[in-house]
Amino acid sequence: MKSDIEIAQASTMKPIVEIAKKIGLTEDDLELYGKYKAKISNEALSKIKTKVSGKVILVTSINPTPAGEGKSTVTVGLADAFNRIGKKVMIAMREPSLGPTMGIKGGATGGGYSQVLPMEDINLHFTGDLHAITTANNALAALIDNHLQQGNELHIDQRRIVWKRAVDLNDRALRKVIIGLGGPLQGVPREDGFDITVASEIMAVLCLATDLKDLKLRLARMVVAYNVNKEPVTVGDLGVEGALTLLLKEAVKPNLVQTIEHTPALIHGGPFANIAHGCNSVIATTAAAKLADYVITEGGFGADLGAEKFLHIKARSAGIKPEAVVVVATIRALKMHGGVAKTELAKENIPSLTLGFANLQKHIETIKSFGLPVVVAINKFITDTDLEVQTLLEWCDRENVVVALTEVWEKGGLGGIELANKLLEVIEKEKNNFHPLYDLSDSLEQKIQTIVQKVYGGKDVEFSPKAKKQLIDFEKFGWSNLAICMAKSQYSLSDDPTKLGRPTDFTVTIREFKPSIGAGFIVALTGEVMTMPGLPKKPAALNMDVDENGNAVGLF
Amino acid sequence: MKSDIEIAQASTMKPIVEIAKKIGLTEDDLELYGKYKAKISNEALSKIKTKVSGKVILVTSINPTPAGEGKSTVTVGLADAFNRIGKKVMIAMREPSLGPTMGIKGGATGGGYSQVLPMEDINLHFTGDLHAITTANNALAALIDNHLQQGNELHIDQRRIVWKRAVDLNDRALRKVIIGLGGPLQGVPREDGFDITVASEIMAVLCLATDLKDLKLRLARMVVAYNVNKEPVTVGDLGVEGALTLLLKEAVKPNLVQTIEHTPALIHGGPFANIAHGCNSVIATTAAAKLADYVITEGGFGADLGAEKFLHIKARSAGIKPEAVVVVATIRALKMHGGVAKTELAKENIPSLTLGFANLQKHIETIKSFGLPVVVAINKFITDTDLEVQTLLEWCDRENVVVALTEVWEKGGLGGIELANKLLEVIEKEKNNFHPLYDLSDSLEQKIQTIVQKVYGGKDVEFSPKAKKQLIDFEKFGWSNLAICMAKSQYSLSDDPTKLGRPTDFTVTIREFKPSIGAGFIVALTGEVMTMPGLPKKPAALNMDVDENGNAVGLF
Repeated sequence: MKSDIEIAQASTMKPIVEIAKKIGLTEDDLELYGKYKAKISNEALSKIKTKVSGKVILVTSINPTPAGEGKSTVTVGLADAFNRIGKKVMIAMREPSLGPTMGIKGGATGGGYSQVLPMEDINLHFTGDLHAITTANNALAALIDNHLQQGNELHIDQRRIVWKRAVDLNDRALRKVIIGLGGPLQGVPREDGFDITVASEIMAVLCLATDLKDLKLRLARMVVAYNVNKEPVTVGDLGVEGALTLLLKEAVKPNLVQTIEHTPALIHGGPFANIAHGCNSVIATTAAAKLADYVITEGGFGADLGAEKFLHIKARSAGIKPEAVVVVATIRALKMHGGVAKTELAKENIPSLTLGFANLQKHIETIKSFGLPVVVAINKFITDTDLEVQTLLEWCDRENVVVALTEVWEKGGLGGIELANKLLEVIEKEKNNFHPLYDLSDSLEQKIQTIVQKVYGGKDVEFSPKAKKQLIDFEKFGWSNLAICMAKSQYSLSDDPTKLGRPTDFTVTIREFKPSIGAGFIVALTGEVMTMPGLPKKPAALNMDVDENGNAVGLF
Repeated sequence: MKSDIEIAQASTMKPIVEIAKKIGLTEDDLELYGKYKAKISNEALSKIKTKVSGKVILVTSINPTPAGEGKSTVTVGLADAFNRIGKKVMIAMREPSLGPTMGIKGGATGGGYSQVLPMEDINLHFTGDLHAITTANNALAALIDNHLQQGNELHIDQRRIVWKRAVDLNDRALRKVIIGLGGPLQGVPREDGFDITVASEIMAVLCLATDLKDLKLRLARMVVAYNVNKEPVTVGDLGVEGALTLLLKEAVKPNLVQTIEHTPALIHGGPFANIAHGCNSVIATTAAAKLADYVITEGGFGADLGAEKFLHIKARSAGIKPEAVVVVATIRALKMHGGVAKTELAKENIPSLTLGFANLQKHIETIKSFGLPVVVAINKFITDTDLEVQTLLEWCDRENVVVALTEVWEKGGLGGIELANKLLEVIEKEKNNFHPLYDLSDSLEQKIQTIVQKVYGGKDVEFSPKAKKQLIDFEKFGWSNLAICMAKSQYSLSDDPTKLGRPTDFTVTIREFKPSIGAGFIVALTGEVMTMPGLPKKPAALNMDVDENGNAVGLF
């Protein structure tokens, strides 16, 4: 069997100018980055604003397991299937971070014959968006420390600076650092830390901004510190939102690439799915909707996090009304939710599979509670037995669940045609009554209560003393009407990663809040969230190289 | 008078594909970055290798003063002048760092009507080269700390890790830091520091590499630490030169842009001119020489640093034989070398001007001692009086110095035609007997002695006890045959920045050495060298913004 990079390198891309033509864009509408990547110009983005929007389809999944679900692969393969049945379709997806690429094998651009290309470039520097975000993040940090150094006019409490520095790498040694050492000419010594770039609030802000003007307004609202009176100090107070916007003026333009089957794809932005909302940019999704009749997009992790945040945060803030939701599952992953160990997945196990349905069932119920049609996509694996597949299909039939088997990894778009047709059917037949589960005018506690009870199926929420104290401050600062962004384990519907399947009667504990005022949400942290990954004992970097023609070797 | 950015924004660029045509490159030879920037592909670079090389002209200057000499402006204007008189010419210049751009007003792409465009892009993220270098630098740092964390097989002495992290920003608070805090899961606590990206050895390596293969060999040789037996540990020992090369595979390709007058320019690489050699990449200079009959290039700071390093390090390692050297001076700067304060420069002062000639004279002697023809370019200012100009011309006449007055800032190439013609004349008439002043087989002490006596005009060199001890180690490690890269004050021929003009009888003290084995030189540090600048009280960032069309505001 060929590896992802072998399949990618054996594929023939069309010039991106040709791909752009399919969606009505001329070469003048593009800013080329080589022959196969382009940014869409500001002029083109304004020009298409008045067009009617196409239908947005969200791809999400059951709670992820080490067995793998292949959500990105289904996203790509589904779009290729739409393309094959003659629909004008685009993909809107996240762009990957370099950190994990250097650390652990595994791309973020789909897999097998359902990939976006050029996969090497997308997984390395791409069009420089993440570098621009890192630079803006760290320019802001340098400007904050310079403010301390030059007299601290804003009376920033140096113990309460919440803006961290960033690198787009896995670098555990930078998690906790002391900076500003060496005497009065080298700055003010203080504790600091680095996040991976995708955890920077600037990434979330860029992904939620509707245009350059909105980007600047959001950047100005970001809270970087508290002053000696414990009041928030913002980027606007420092007066540097213009400089940050300037650093981001190219990064904010969406990137056009193509799939192996030449379906146009916008790959743009990629915020963390725990301390942020985990979706590609609003600009990319809305542009794709203007340029195509169908947009296939995804959210990070399972439906309890990715879909909930897509629907409550991104869709609400951008005015996107999705048409239907695909929930991706595999028989292997369902068996793990039913209690099978990863090493035993190759064996048929009907009782565990049946137990595992509970996890899928909860996510289907959640999507329906948002008033949205849902189709389950079962990503087929070679180890799935006929009896397992039959058991699954019978369960879906009994539960009135629309289901499609997909083989997009091996067959590309051809393996997703059943799914595409079922989606078209539910979009046409089923009622779409999309509505959020909470209102922004609800209190922050109420919003969390709603998510825990209606999306996670939990019993109750507890707030730590620290979290309670923060809520009082937030009320005072006027932040109560912001959205909630849950930072919870992706592996379980609960906040305990060991509780697979469909746990009930659990209580979720909110340990602490992290305000992301520029993004427009309050992050509710349930446990320790790692915002700077480490490298493994044998990093993927050890196998990487270039060949004599300058092509990547050992990337995946 | 219009500002540089106003002049730049009012200029009309030609599509870079058209500029490329002038030098025999087709669209297929380019990797476009928008309409006005392109990288030259590996295929095109190999294709031109067999062509005859054009003539390389180096632009350098007297010791810089706060009055400004305009070396980059002359480089650009001189190329435009060659273009105007019908010569096939290219520029090879350094690309700027973002750090100073955010800190202090002032571009690095020429000035007035002698600028390279698009100046906004070049001064911001350009084609991402510096971001790739930052990333490779920091990926290496993360891999070193991960090596410590995962068992330290190479027995690295954590107190002797010499590889620092980097950001392409002015951020004094990162000069001295402690990393790895927070317990055994967060890494090994140790002292560390950040340099600005242009001070990374990777920048020097990229600029001296002749191709991707040479780049990888050089990266492998870089020393990152010493082990518990005090022996050097290299990138090759860590086995990650392939990964670093992969991260740099696009950055190593030269960037094609144009001047206001549509002269093709390669802007590529920009190492520090103190702890590194301060010249644009070898790949850019040699490619430009293959594509044009004349290449105008420059070195950082004055001739004592920039030209010495161009000739001893870059030219020797790349096999470049320059045809002639331009030494740029202004009457204002010569007056400062003669003792006039910056505030008094507008007043005519013949005695001080005459005293100041001594600095220019020394640099002319130095260039001649390399066996190279020299032309002095006097960059005219509005405050220069007729008598001052006449005094200067008479001095040149007496000293047998070829001189040309230039007005490239105001007039573009038109203001450089006299200079271009005089250059053509000396190239044709004068004997070129180019030879280095020291041999690589000389001892490291001898090489420094030669530079201090023959280039600086000093009496002697002293070595600190630490430096002496290092020399013994270097001998043991087999590093004695490397070049010397002097890190000395740019303001004086001596190592004392207050000694202007032409100091004599001085002794230069070598405080410490810093080996750059990948670059192929030993840096000799004479004083404290700042490798991470700070921001001023009112950083330029405060004035930056974007307008409604997404264009830069307040960049310069």
